[in-house]
Amino acid sequence: MGQVQFMRNLIIETPSVPGNFAKVAKAIGELEGDMGDIQTIKVGTLTTIRDIAISCSNEAHLLKIVDAVNAIGGGISVHAVTDDVLQAHEGGKIHMKGRMEIRSLGDLRRVYTPGVANVCEVIKNDPDQARYFTGISNSVAIVTDGTAILGLGNIGPVAGMPVMEGKAVLFDQFAGISGVPILLDTSDPDQVVETVKHIHKGFGGILLEDIGSPHCFEIEERLKAELSIPVMHDDQHGTAVVTLASVISACQQSGVELADSVVGQIGLGAAGLAISRMLMEYGVKEMRGVDRNEEARNRLADHGGSVVDSVEELMETCDIIVATTGVAGLIKPEMVRKGQIILALSNPNAEITPEDALAAGAAFAADGRLVNNILGFPGIFRGALNANAKEITYPMLIAAAQAIVESTKPGDLVPHPLDPNVHQNVAAAVERVANS
Amino acid sequence: MGQVQFMRNLIIETPSVPGNFAKVAKAIGELEGDMGDIQTIKVGTLTTIRDIAISCSNEAHLLKIVDAVNAIGGGISVHAVTDDVLQAHEGGKIHMKGRMEIRSLGDLRRVYTPGVANVCEVIKNDPDQARYFTGISNSVAIVTDGTAILGLGNIGPVAGMPVMEGKAVLFDQFAGISGVPILLDTSDPDQVVETVKHIHKGFGGILLEDIGSPHCFEIEERLKAELSIPVMHDDQHGTAVVTLASVISACQQSGVELADSVVGQIGLGAAGLAISRMLMEYGVKEMRGVDRNEEARNRLADHGGSVVDSVEELMETCDIIVATTGVAGLIKPEMVRKGQIILALSNPNAEITPEDALAAGAAFAADGRLVNNILGFPGIFRGALNANAKEITYPMLIAAAQAIVESTKPGDLVPHPLDPNVHQNVAAAVERVANS
Repeated sequence: MGQVQFMRNLIIETPSVPGNFAKVAKAIGELEGDMGDIQTIKVGTLTTIRDIAISCSNEAHLLKIVDAVNAIGGGISVHAVTDDVLQAHEGGKIHMKGRMEIRSLGDLRRVYTPGVANVCEVIKNDPDQARYFTGISNSVAIVTDGTAILGLGNIGPVAGMPVMEGKAVLFDQFAGISGVPILLDTSDPDQVVETVKHIHKGFGGILLEDIGSPHCFEIEERLKAELSIPVMHDDQHGTAVVTLASVISACQQSGVELADSVVGQIGLGAAGLAISRMLMEYGVKEMRGVDRNEEARNRLADHGGSVVDSVEELMETCDIIVATTGVAGLIKPEMVRKGQIILALSNPNAEITPEDALAAGAAFAADGRLVNNILGFPGIFRGALNANAKEITYPMLIAAAQAIVESTKPGDLVPHPLDPNVHQNVAAAVERVANS
Repeated sequence: MGQVQFMRNLIIETPSVPGNFAKVAKAIGELEGDMGDIQTIKVGTLTTIRDIAISCSNEAHLLKIVDAVNAIGGGISVHAVTDDVLQAHEGGKIHMKGRMEIRSLGDLRRVYTPGVANVCEVIKNDPDQARYFTGISNSVAIVTDGTAILGLGNIGPVAGMPVMEGKAVLFDQFAGISGVPILLDTSDPDQVVETVKHIHKGFGGILLEDIGSPHCFEIEERLKAELSIPVMHDDQHGTAVVTLASVISACQQSGVELADSVVGQIGLGAAGLAISRMLMEYGVKEMRGVDRNEEARNRLADHGGSVVDSVEELMETCDIIVATTGVAGLIKPEMVRKGQIILALSNPNAEITPEDALAAGAAFAADGRLVNNILGFPGIFRGALNANAKEITYPMLIAAAQAIVESTKPGDLVPHPLDPNVHQNVAAAVERVANS
């Protein structure tokens, strides 16, 4: 559920007079520029320089904001516009590091020849030892064919690499997992399955990432069936875990009993179908779904859900609504029923804003800004690898969702993504279920 | 050219009396134990504890050494035997690290969503930008099928993983390259070529490693032809580069003109054939070779070398001898001609020891202990990646060999493998030729 925004940093100098920064903030805010982190670069006797991160719609929008700041007058000026996002990507975001430095011939003899031959022999004689004396069991291949990169669609695996590297950074930081991007130049399910099978022995798990629908379904099913290591398509099940956590959390906050509720899913793509399946596995009174695509509707029916004919019908008959269509404004305020829970998750623009949904009578409403896969996949794989699990099962995924809910601070829908506790809790919950 | 040795560390306590350590060293030396690094663990008023690395033949040999040390008496005793090699491998030797830490939501927005979408779009619109904003152009896949791991043979790719991780450690430390082991569960050339092709877009180069002969020849040739990134089989061309450097160096030290010499190669496996081809590319008067295998002999002839019928004939007719047969003692002292240069490279036991060769009249003799691929592949790939080279050519490899020679201290055959200058010099030489 990614989105494209235009992000830049403005280096702005203001005379050191109280109130000047407020003028800058006002000028930016009036043009609907979204201010992020602000760093004070220099506090001089006469002037102050700040680095202000701005998200806006496009370059023209940014130039308007720059002009507006420069037009404030009184010595306030934009010194420079920097692209901190691009800068953070220079040279790539990941690197395969040695876990020890070779400082002597003795080190070299231990880490490389001749010592390494001893370790090879140990593993040759007892293949299970690879789990202890190589990094295989702590590494996950992040596999994409580049056909469904964020909201950008089929831009190819190389253009998708920054996302894969981002996942690897998150794996490293939040779960201590060595994540290795694998960019496939084919989307053909036979070739994808064959290729992943041929390289899978070097990894403890496979994260399928940003692979388009419908070929993602066949690829994941076949790999799960044929490999004895955990395989998970994050855009399906990672998203479904975090969504289930959000739904449970929303029910708790609004006093609704999820098990007694009829839940409606608008949009039955990879994420929507997986969310529907996850809710059915968790246990709801009934799962209903709607999609323009017939195959997508059939897939829901095959998995035990009920198909309805229109968004209107769904809105009329369901207690809880989850929308993942990518269509902004699809849910009209007049469709909202009193007491409904509405999670309109499309980014950057939701099917209905939380404000509009609440004004129309919803008991609870949220959009997709907080429902981020980061909360799921690092801990899920950490737990599965810790347990030496052969697969990732629904009970493991549901345990992950519950751990996310339990890690949520009162009043929040989900935890802060940088809270290390949530990742530890998810890992522990998944490991516990995998071992049970 | 690896070897299997039995390496352990002995923790030995001696009363703090001068001469006691000499007694320990004598006991170990008398049993032909090879002492490596020695660390003083504790210097007490009464006793001293040292950690002594020992290489020996096997466990029985080690136990004899331990018994001998314990039998010295006077309070000298072996406290413990530790396996530092295995310990250094615990958890594996490599990890995919993020190059920056995510400390704030602002960092997360730059490194992951939503900022990452900007970078994806930049690359989508201009694919060359992947070279700057991803790690692809700085990463090399270390690909093996596990069929020729060191001297251990076909032990499979998982048991070979410690070698691949070792290569990745060396890539990281000596060339700043992100090396990614890829373990193939197939040796079929069609499947290997297809698999590597399907994943190659994620890498700036391919290092083929420990792939057996003869399928290594077809695999390398096809991949070089079909991919537009550098591909090199280290056991062939990496070994050949370091061997060429050793031959040049040996010629310089013994006043022999390599260009006017007849060179004989004993053993025409992957390394032997590649050494022969490299020497012909460099320019020698004639290249002769011998091997028991007819196909191997034919391959040398196909590449322009002359096949002779016996080791005796080769020894009789060549000025410079290179041997890579793995057969200890194959070259008898009576075969050696006065003034010959003999590089008997098989590990751990050479075809003839340098002492025996010199005693029999050789002008120069060396074995394979120093001729280590470490001197070649990190700098070769660093140079090729720096130059954005599409392939690794013979002129690049010869430049690498010359850079190794120029980095060698007077009197040495090759540089110390931990000397950072050699890797920088190799990289610079390769980059210069690639750009010319």
